[in-house]
Amino acid sequence: MDREDTLRRLKNVEGHVRGIQRMVENDAYCIDLIRQIQAVQAALGVVSENILHDHLHSCLITAVRGEDPEERERVLKEITEVYSMASKV
Amino acid sequence: MDREDTLRRLKNVEGHVRGIQRMVENDAYCIDLIRQIQAVQAALGVVSENILHDHLHSCLITAVRGEDPEERERVLKEITEVYSMASKV
Amino acid sequence: MDREDTLRRLKNVEGHVRGIQRMVENDAYCIDLIRQIQAVQAALGVVSENILHDHLHSCLITAVRGEDPEERERVLKEITEVYSMASKV
Amino acid sequence: MDREDTLRRLKNVEGHVRGIQRMVENDAYCIDLIRQIQAVQAALGVVSENILHDHLHSCLITAVRGEDPEERERVLKEITEVYSMASKV
Repeated sequence: MDREDTLRRLKNVEGHVRGIQRMVENDAYCIDLIRQIQAVQAALGVVSENILHDHLHSCLITAVRGEDPEERERVLKEITEVYSMASKV
Repeated sequence: MDREDTLRRLKNVEGHVRGIQRMVENDAYCIDLIRQIQAVQAALGVVSENILHDHLHSCLITAVRGEDPEERERVLKEITEVYSMASKV
Repeated sequence: MDREDTLRRLKNVEGHVRGIQRMVENDAYCIDLIRQIQAVQAALGVVSENILHDHLHSCLITAVRGEDPEERERVLKEITEVYSMASKV
Repeated sequence: MDREDTLRRLKNVEGHVRGIQRMVENDAYCIDLIRQIQAVQAALGVVSENILHDHLHSCLITAVRGEDPEERERVLKEITEVYSMASKV
């Protein structure tokens, strides 16, 4: 995984969330708060896409080419699970 | 892919969508329409999860174990793309 | 509600779902199936947005201006509920 | 808005995001990272639902009962917009 890029994006998300806290303290307009929260959710979506991309190019390839059918099955099942969850958050 | 199960689910979705059309014609309450539409979206989500499950256990394994790096890259990229799209529909 | 537009869109969705059934019968590529299913989910999202738009401009206004606090509360609660569900399907 | 509850939830989200950063630094398993990111997205979804709930019970009621049709239209349009966005993040 490109760890530095992921950490940088998560730092930005953390700063964004603190910014929303200040907006709440300053009685910002509700809809502006919701829009900022949705922007953070979208930014987190990009982070998880990047992590999945790296996962497919490393752990997945190792598991699929490996000798252990249970390990392979576990890795494939996890991908289906996070795909399913992606549309529910 | 378990083609019969997928076809059965898509038939149900088609019937559900026709049912919503009748609700519209009969002036059903807006919120009830929205709830039915959301139920159809969720049912379609299950269909795509099942298809992804089967894809991972067939095409993906073939591509990852195969000799063609471009084909492997294409298959891995597609998975990231449908994952990304899953959270946007 | 603009009933004709909604019915037309739902007819299109129904045809799209039938098209996906034919793709399944013809052994279409899994990822192409998933993309078409996601396109249908997005089209249904537009339908529900349009219905919500009309609901806000009719039932909601009536309920908020009306004399019945329980009816108003019910209508406001429904909107929060479909908003919550929108991100989960 | 129940500002204290919202601030408390956003503080929790901020801590959660910092925890994910530590997981990245400690080379946590990719899928565990994705699951934690999805949990944060879901927690943010609850925050925005609560804010929308309060918005409907305050600003919306004021705008719908008020004398200014442009203001009312603006408020109704915003609700449709955040509803639309909710399914895309």
